[in-house]
Amino acid sequence: MPRLFDNLSSGNGYKCRLLLAQLGVPYERVELDIFAGESRTPDYLAKNPNGKIPLLELDDGRYLAESNAILWWLAEGTPFLPEERFRRAEVLQWMFFEQYSHEPNIATVRMWLMHMELDDAKRRAIEDKRPRGYAALRVMEQHLAARRFFVDDRYSIADIALYAYTHVAPQGGFDLGDFVAVRSWLDRVRAMPGHIPITQV
Amino acid sequence: MPRLFDNLSSGNGYKCRLLLAQLGVPYERVELDIFAGESRTPDYLAKNPNGKIPLLELDDGRYLAESNAILWWLAEGTPFLPEERFRRAEVLQWMFFEQYSHEPNIATVRMWLMHMELDDAKRRAIEDKRPRGYAALRVMEQHLAARRFFVDDRYSIADIALYAYTHVAPQGGFDLGDFVAVRSWLDRVRAMPGHIPITQV
Repeated sequence: MPRLFDNLSSGNGYKCRLLLAQLGVPYERVELDIFAGESRTPDYLAKNPNGKIPLLELDDGRYLAESNAILWWLAEGTPFLPEERFRRAEVLQWMFFEQYSHEPNIATVRMWLMHMELDDAKRRAIEDKRPRGYAALRVMEQHLAARRFFVDDRYSIADIALYAYTHVAPQGGFDLGDFVAVRSWLDRVRAMPGHIPITQV
Repeated sequence: MPRLFDNLSSGNGYKCRLLLAQLGVPYERVELDIFAGESRTPDYLAKNPNGKIPLLELDDGRYLAESNAILWWLAEGTPFLPEERFRRAEVLQWMFFEQYSHEPNIATVRMWLMHMELDDAKRRAIEDKRPRGYAALRVMEQHLAARRFFVDDRYSIADIALYAYTHVAPQGGFDLGDFVAVRSWLDRVRAMPGHIPITQV
């Protein structure tokens, strides 16, 4: 049975929990208190030198890091990942967009507001990240205006990757009120069979 | 013939130019002055709503954004991308590491030092990014200590993705002197057939 090193408040961890649930794959979950340094211990760094969760340990003891690489590994050969070459590249396009243009702005601000004391440096950083987060949401809004899902009009790991931190963006102070297409898409993702909320294991 | 919307100083663009050269794929290159806003015009935003280069336009008029998604699309079915499922996931792991932990620190500092006036905000941001960039280099150094290339001991798009901004890290003020394994790997990448430097088209 695979083991997922995880933190329940993490959207990156949630991506993996959600797909594992929808695939019906049993797994063991190891909760790390990342705010108390549990992803920075020598023992954990031996598993993932980059010191981050989620991390998937396979049955044979191999490790795979990076939430979106884990999604790809799990989804291969299932309906959650298209088979056609260009569609697969589009899935990756949106997953790289998520990690570069979306997560560092929206997820980071959410984490700071939920778990950290704000000093002047963080307040300045939030001022910088706020418009970048909204810019990412506008790119999503435009794409979803005429589409049900991100790629090939079907639910895929591109939707899972982007859902994880979009649906909790208000916890980071992002107002989704004007993002009509994004909110409809959030509802469609939530309605998929086997969906679980972020804090449910 | 595919068209690459590009900027010659960009490592993200260079990833695509390097792989296209090594694959022997002819293409048309469109240079955009990204510092003069040419990736933010209405015409370009209609092609890539995220307003970034590189962008690949296929023969049939479809567009693919995100450098590492473009690498994946181009490398599929070639020796630059392993066939085995776990190896492919490892390639993605390193490409997501590159876009999340490496590029936003090393490439961004390089771009600011090369192309921007530094104000107090940017100086503070560099102080924040400097240790994060070195942390990414240490993860690479540790991984490469016993390996010739990042995945499966063979040259792949994981190496191309990480080479792009690592070999010019000194332009961002990063000293590679202590990174012995990284420097040996840079030499191995440079020695691959068909290698071209970043500013060569």
